[in-house]
Amino acid sequence: MRIEKDSIGTVEIPDKAYFGIHSKRAQLNFPITDEKVHPLLLKNLLLVKIACAQANYQAHNLSYKKYHAITTAGAQIYTTFPDYQAEFITPAIQGGAGTSTNMNVNEVIANRALELLGHSKGDYAALHPNDDVNRGQSTNDVYPTGAHLALLQLNQMLAIELEKVIVVLKQLSDKYQNTLKLGRTQLEDAVPTTYGTSFNAYAHLFTRALQRIKQVHNSLLVLPLGGTAIGTGITANPEYLKNVVPLLSKIVGLPLKQADNLSDAIQNTDCFLMAADAFKNLAVALSKMCNDLRLLGSGPRAGLGELALPKVQAGSSIMPGKVNPVIPEAINQIAFQVCGYNATITMCSEAGQLELNAFEPVMFRDLFSAAELLQKGLKMLKDGCLTHLKVNQAHCAHQIEESAEIATVLAPKIGYVQATLLVKTALQQKVSIRKVLKEHLKLSATEIENLLAPESLLGCLHTNSISQPAKTAL
Amino acid sequence: MRIEKDSIGTVEIPDKAYFGIHSKRAQLNFPITDEKVHPLLLKNLLLVKIACAQANYQAHNLSYKKYHAITTAGAQIYTTFPDYQAEFITPAIQGGAGTSTNMNVNEVIANRALELLGHSKGDYAALHPNDDVNRGQSTNDVYPTGAHLALLQLNQMLAIELEKVIVVLKQLSDKYQNTLKLGRTQLEDAVPTTYGTSFNAYAHLFTRALQRIKQVHNSLLVLPLGGTAIGTGITANPEYLKNVVPLLSKIVGLPLKQADNLSDAIQNTDCFLMAADAFKNLAVALSKMCNDLRLLGSGPRAGLGELALPKVQAGSSIMPGKVNPVIPEAINQIAFQVCGYNATITMCSEAGQLELNAFEPVMFRDLFSAAELLQKGLKMLKDGCLTHLKVNQAHCAHQIEESAEIATVLAPKIGYVQATLLVKTALQQKVSIRKVLKEHLKLSATEIENLLAPESLLGCLHTNSISQPAKTAL
Amino acid sequence: MRIEKDSIGTVEIPDKAYFGIHSKRAQLNFPITDEKVHPLLLKNLLLVKIACAQANYQAHNLSYKKYHAITTAGAQIYTTFPDYQAEFITPAIQGGAGTSTNMNVNEVIANRALELLGHSKGDYAALHPNDDVNRGQSTNDVYPTGAHLALLQLNQMLAIELEKVIVVLKQLSDKYQNTLKLGRTQLEDAVPTTYGTSFNAYAHLFTRALQRIKQVHNSLLVLPLGGTAIGTGITANPEYLKNVVPLLSKIVGLPLKQADNLSDAIQNTDCFLMAADAFKNLAVALSKMCNDLRLLGSGPRAGLGELALPKVQAGSSIMPGKVNPVIPEAINQIAFQVCGYNATITMCSEAGQLELNAFEPVMFRDLFSAAELLQKGLKMLKDGCLTHLKVNQAHCAHQIEESAEIATVLAPKIGYVQATLLVKTALQQKVSIRKVLKEHLKLSATEIENLLAPESLLGCLHTNSISQPAKTAL
Amino acid sequence: MRIEKDSIGTVEIPDKAYFGIHSKRAQLNFPITDEKVHPLLLKNLLLVKIACAQANYQAHNLSYKKYHAITTAGAQIYTTFPDYQAEFITPAIQGGAGTSTNMNVNEVIANRALELLGHSKGDYAALHPNDDVNRGQSTNDVYPTGAHLALLQLNQMLAIELEKVIVVLKQLSDKYQNTLKLGRTQLEDAVPTTYGTSFNAYAHLFTRALQRIKQVHNSLLVLPLGGTAIGTGITANPEYLKNVVPLLSKIVGLPLKQADNLSDAIQNTDCFLMAADAFKNLAVALSKMCNDLRLLGSGPRAGLGELALPKVQAGSSIMPGKVNPVIPEAINQIAFQVCGYNATITMCSEAGQLELNAFEPVMFRDLFSAAELLQKGLKMLKDGCLTHLKVNQAHCAHQIEESAEIATVLAPKIGYVQATLLVKTALQQKVSIRKVLKEHLKLSATEIENLLAPESLLGCLHTNSISQPAKTAL
Repeated sequence: MRIEKDSIGTVEIPDKAYFGIHSKRAQLNFPITDEKVHPLLLKNLLLVKIACAQANYQAHNLSYKKYHAITTAGAQIYTTFPDYQAEFITPAIQGGAGTSTNMNVNEVIANRALELLGHSKGDYAALHPNDDVNRGQSTNDVYPTGAHLALLQLNQMLAIELEKVIVVLKQLSDKYQNTLKLGRTQLEDAVPTTYGTSFNAYAHLFTRALQRIKQVHNSLLVLPLGGTAIGTGITANPEYLKNVVPLLSKIVGLPLKQADNLSDAIQNTDCFLMAADAFKNLAVALSKMCNDLRLLGSGPRAGLGELALPKVQAGSSIMPGKVNPVIPEAINQIAFQVCGYNATITMCSEAGQLELNAFEPVMFRDLFSAAELLQKGLKMLKDGCLTHLKVNQAHCAHQIEESAEIATVLAPKIGYVQATLLVKTALQQKVSIRKVLKEHLKLSATEIENLLAPESLLGCLHTNSISQPAKTAL
Repeated sequence: MRIEKDSIGTVEIPDKAYFGIHSKRAQLNFPITDEKVHPLLLKNLLLVKIACAQANYQAHNLSYKKYHAITTAGAQIYTTFPDYQAEFITPAIQGGAGTSTNMNVNEVIANRALELLGHSKGDYAALHPNDDVNRGQSTNDVYPTGAHLALLQLNQMLAIELEKVIVVLKQLSDKYQNTLKLGRTQLEDAVPTTYGTSFNAYAHLFTRALQRIKQVHNSLLVLPLGGTAIGTGITANPEYLKNVVPLLSKIVGLPLKQADNLSDAIQNTDCFLMAADAFKNLAVALSKMCNDLRLLGSGPRAGLGELALPKVQAGSSIMPGKVNPVIPEAINQIAFQVCGYNATITMCSEAGQLELNAFEPVMFRDLFSAAELLQKGLKMLKDGCLTHLKVNQAHCAHQIEESAEIATVLAPKIGYVQATLLVKTALQQKVSIRKVLKEHLKLSATEIENLLAPESLLGCLHTNSISQPAKTAL
Repeated sequence: MRIEKDSIGTVEIPDKAYFGIHSKRAQLNFPITDEKVHPLLLKNLLLVKIACAQANYQAHNLSYKKYHAITTAGAQIYTTFPDYQAEFITPAIQGGAGTSTNMNVNEVIANRALELLGHSKGDYAALHPNDDVNRGQSTNDVYPTGAHLALLQLNQMLAIELEKVIVVLKQLSDKYQNTLKLGRTQLEDAVPTTYGTSFNAYAHLFTRALQRIKQVHNSLLVLPLGGTAIGTGITANPEYLKNVVPLLSKIVGLPLKQADNLSDAIQNTDCFLMAADAFKNLAVALSKMCNDLRLLGSGPRAGLGELALPKVQAGSSIMPGKVNPVIPEAINQIAFQVCGYNATITMCSEAGQLELNAFEPVMFRDLFSAAELLQKGLKMLKDGCLTHLKVNQAHCAHQIEESAEIATVLAPKIGYVQATLLVKTALQQKVSIRKVLKEHLKLSATEIENLLAPESLLGCLHTNSISQPAKTAL
Repeated sequence: MRIEKDSIGTVEIPDKAYFGIHSKRAQLNFPITDEKVHPLLLKNLLLVKIACAQANYQAHNLSYKKYHAITTAGAQIYTTFPDYQAEFITPAIQGGAGTSTNMNVNEVIANRALELLGHSKGDYAALHPNDDVNRGQSTNDVYPTGAHLALLQLNQMLAIELEKVIVVLKQLSDKYQNTLKLGRTQLEDAVPTTYGTSFNAYAHLFTRALQRIKQVHNSLLVLPLGGTAIGTGITANPEYLKNVVPLLSKIVGLPLKQADNLSDAIQNTDCFLMAADAFKNLAVALSKMCNDLRLLGSGPRAGLGELALPKVQAGSSIMPGKVNPVIPEAINQIAFQVCGYNATITMCSEAGQLELNAFEPVMFRDLFSAAELLQKGLKMLKDGCLTHLKVNQAHCAHQIEESAEIATVLAPKIGYVQATLLVKTALQQKVSIRKVLKEHLKLSATEIENLLAPESLLGCLHTNSISQPAKTAL
């Protein structure tokens, strides 16, 4: 055991540990969850530390020796992260606005750098977690910078999966371009459309969701880095300040930008809320589509029975042969979870006070979780459901034949009132509209055929060649 | 115009107006909504003022003359409230933790009392809105007391409508006690049940909702009245303090109780949040049931078609003869609105600071609105849908015949694996389970009849006389 | 009374009424709120009807006589809307996915047009609400189109108020550019900044909010108009379809665009959710700023006392001379209300099924209300608080003098550990940092002056000329 | 590897694995989170399985051999749970309404029982996961029963921690019974109270929260067990049905009760929503108190400075000597997380359809997480903050002396208008109220002393012996 000291007192730290007193205190202070800080946040903080050391060195604000040790240590920890993961001991939910996470990174880098320099761990006089690793930095600017970077990655992964889902939806749209489907509004039989149109509508919906995801990307490129405490840049070297973001850009390969007003960038979390809202909007869209899939696939005997979702597991521990839409159900749950995370993030964002938002740890936790659930959910949905989904075309065609609402095509010819009578007649007599047209409107088979041909039923967006039926009394 | 004065300056008030300077300032300060403070809150504040004047008079803390004028004015305004409604000019959403609402009531009473005493309006030296009408009171204790009383009434009205809906559900349960219905889990065909059971399940659900509504009632009986500013009772006479809540109890006819810790009762809003949560839980239950009703009533040709909801209006401006489940849809929307109000109330409650919650005005507004929407919605649902709802019994029976999952009854006899094969066979060959039982299990017609008799299918909660079918290879 | 008839039966309508049977049924069916459909939605639906009649006429799909009567009636009702407002009797929350609202508009136009043509009201054989006024339309496409237009207007009005608030914040930033302020993180004393920076940070925050408002504008320009029922354009004339959106664009003066996939545009509500989220993000930002204003203005004796918010009304019914931050408090409440509306809109959006979202009525109601509350709230905040707000500069300067955290500037020179000791010494001995610097670091008056000069304390974003203090033992 | 088979096909299972094909498929089907199903849910499902086997055996519905093997296996797995934890491979968020979790338990028990019986794993002909372990059960009834039991435990643990916090708050209340504190409403100086009253108010608040937690306990005692699929008890033996809940009660030591309507108990989730709402209400209360603690502890130089929260870690990576209220901040974040979980649970509950709620997995996940976060958070708050919290009594007394609002005590004597002038005078002249009383009201030192004595300032809830000051012109 080594003894480390801070302004509060001393703490025993295991000799082997790369973490130090601050990390240990945080671990002990917040025994509220076993979940640790997200690895992507930690890894990106390592990259930030490397960029900061580079910038300080270039500004003659850090010795070569220290610079080299810090950047080497940072790179080692980054590239062999699993080996060091156990050193990051602070919980995902923590008080202190991220200071514990930042200090955990500072301490692990410092102690690894000390080793590289031939010193013992804890020999902070030689290289200090605060004075050297955290040089020209504050948790205030570094911590959200790490979150921006982590979220940019997760957001990008999400965008990629979303694009793939859009591709599959377009393929389904092409495949079922001419497959008729009875439309339903308010769950009641409406007029026909095609599954081509339906899948295409989903593709459009998710294309807009993707655009919002990309706007989030752009807004996350603007960083608070350089603001140090509360955005004034206090303790930061001017040369460092100029270079640190470009250096970080080079490291992560993204066109990052330092915020114009760093105080704003540190205290306000609207870009995170914007991300949460883009995720929520996507989640809601996914949930709506999965509700549709579950409904259209309901049955097999006493449901709508239009879609055959792939069977991926036995559905019941008691009912033999039952198969359930488990993949869409998992998506619904992801969606509800993401909406809940949004509520949390909204409350966190509102609770920011003065020059800082102290509630970033849980905000980041929920943002990362939302992005990952959506990304993995999209992949699951694509592989486990959409790719292998089939339309029961014969059943769909039958339903249209049966539907009385196809009489809507007649309304412009014979008027809404007369058409209503036709529909009521068909429903009351439990016969088809074809039969009513023949018996009540005295239409010929050919007239009926023309009138109820798919090109007619699908509306003039598809065709405008509807023959004019005779107006007759019913 | 008369000129009124306060610590800020002077304001011109129309001669006829019973409201005074504070009300007028509030009207001008918060031009954010045309919606005024809820009449029930105002009316209950009038009752509070009457009780306070009585208690002060009994405590020799208010002259008979003033007491008589205040209580007479209060009673007049209460009983002819519509005549005075235009005097209550403060908006439903207002800053100031309700002070503007309280002062509006104080001013209107004071000016009416002044008239009764033969003084001009605004002659506050003779009877003062603060010193006399508000004597021994603070907005801190009076305003939430008014809200408690208003909410007790609304909550009671809600409970009455809820009880009526439960009665109708029980009637439906009785009427359709033996009407078989194919159960569905995860929207997929499951085993049979009865509509009697289904409506009874809703009745149970709403009975629990009613219990929660009644718990809210009990928690609202405890009042902050007497706490004056921040709960210390500062400026209140001890005799007054002892009597004011009993006097108010007598006026409103409810067993009200003064809170043990008045500081707690003033600063904490958990009882309001509890009300909001009871409303949310009810709203969620209503939405779930209405989702079911809409789904079970879907069709008429390409839906589940089990329920015939009453037709209350033409469903479409374009599709002739279409009828939609508009009443349940309105309930769904009420439910979503109530859930949104809950989110608002939650944020308000969390935002209380130190000795007061400044955000009660919008909290109360949303609570009142939630209670009224639910109460009126329940009545609409009962009258416009439930009372006249019918089950398409033949269609339901047909669906059970068709269902393959009725094979579940065989599983304990032949095992889950064998039963699964039967179901798969029926589905693949598109034949009934009866046919499969006959052909594959070589069961006799009688055996099949016994096996698939309603009393068998409905589970041993109904019967346990299921004959044991022979185990045979498929 | 006249008798009107529909597929359900007959209803008596007052002779004078322009509304007809559908409107009346809706009024009777949904007795859940006194609030009527928002006038802006109705007015925009009138404009849509005019554009549709023009397009139908141009397509030879409507006689000149009918076209002229419909457009004249529509224009009259629009321009003298208050005279007709009582004819729009359907409640703001209604089942039926807006059909009642659409039919109310159809009926009022039809009956006014019938009058213009010399017919009696209700003589629909001459001009029919469905066949003529609603020609080539469905509630499915027309109703959300009206909502797009109403929201575009409200959104625009909101943007204008938001821009004005940004201007005032920039003026405050300029005015207090050099007014020092002790920054606070996690409510604890941090390092200094300026009120110029603080107000500028808010200005930046709201500038981003404005950008999101403008993105909403762009997304709302894309309309479902032409899709008729479920987006297929069924019953719509192809010529009409081509022209109707351009004609509407001309009428409203906005570059409207018909959606590529009208089925998507009808069934999906993500653009409305995006609007709700932009409003929520703005609301959260406003709430955060108002929390800051209230906190910084707290006192007068036992609070932070940095800001003097304008005194707009007496604060208490009991505590003399008390003045409260009522304007920011009202904004907080608006913000919480808008967050609640967002929850409602989110649930509505998720609940859309298949080809339609039946829950648009409450979604639109809450969107309109959110936009108006924010717009009016911004104006109130500007006029009632921001414009007249003052900084207590002397008190702010004093607080910085007192603060121990200004020792942060020394950390890069003497190290974090030593600097920590200085701070602890100052706090324990209850003396100023200046005194500690003099006594413990033996710094000269000039050195201390340089070290703690504003340009030094404000960080190297402002200056980099900090002299190096001698390192001495404490 | 062994090969297992189901209605979908075959899957390779590692020879050593106790889990089977259903578990494996679920693991592969839902690759969306690394988080597994909560151990407490699994452990309670084990107990349910034991009770079910007992009840089946007693009903002569299961052989002694199988009964013994199943109960022995279940007990072994329960008591050495960590050894088996890796066998429970289904993710916390999963489609299928819990079937995967239930089957995972069935399979692990079955394979362990098979071992005990001398069979190979996977030899389900000898003892079957569905036919024997799941005998007379369905996921529909068993899964939520497990959740009831898990939640009863977590809820109980939460209640215990909450009681401890209440005890500490009462101790604080006793300790600071007479410590004066300036009350604040709307963040502005109000009249005095005591810290005794304040801590007592929190104690009352949490006592009500505890009552709600206990109501949750009672509502969770009612179980759906016995309903099997959709609540009809299909496949369950009547004798089993009568005994299974009493047997389970004995095992878990709680007075469990079988629901009257098992269909209701299976399809409705209002008792879970009620739990979520009780947690939310507690979370909101905690957040409010922690906001107060952070505010009252703000400083050290430029804040309210009334409370000294224990210093548990260094507060900043850059600002030396800074200490932050990290424990209350962590509680705020827990509170926001719990509110978000509530939103998720609300949406899940609303989304239940017909005879089942398919979204229980994420509902349970969030409920368990909420209960644990609150329980651990309460302990953290008690140990890390409340127990060691101190009031800066001298500073508090000074603030009251300084406050002008203590003039409120004069209002009943000299009137609100005059008292207002006194306060304005004190504030404008920047002098104390004492000075104004002396100079303007010509009061003697004794009169002033009496007037502003604590017993006077604290309101007549404490004393009623205020001498009447002379009325004089100001």
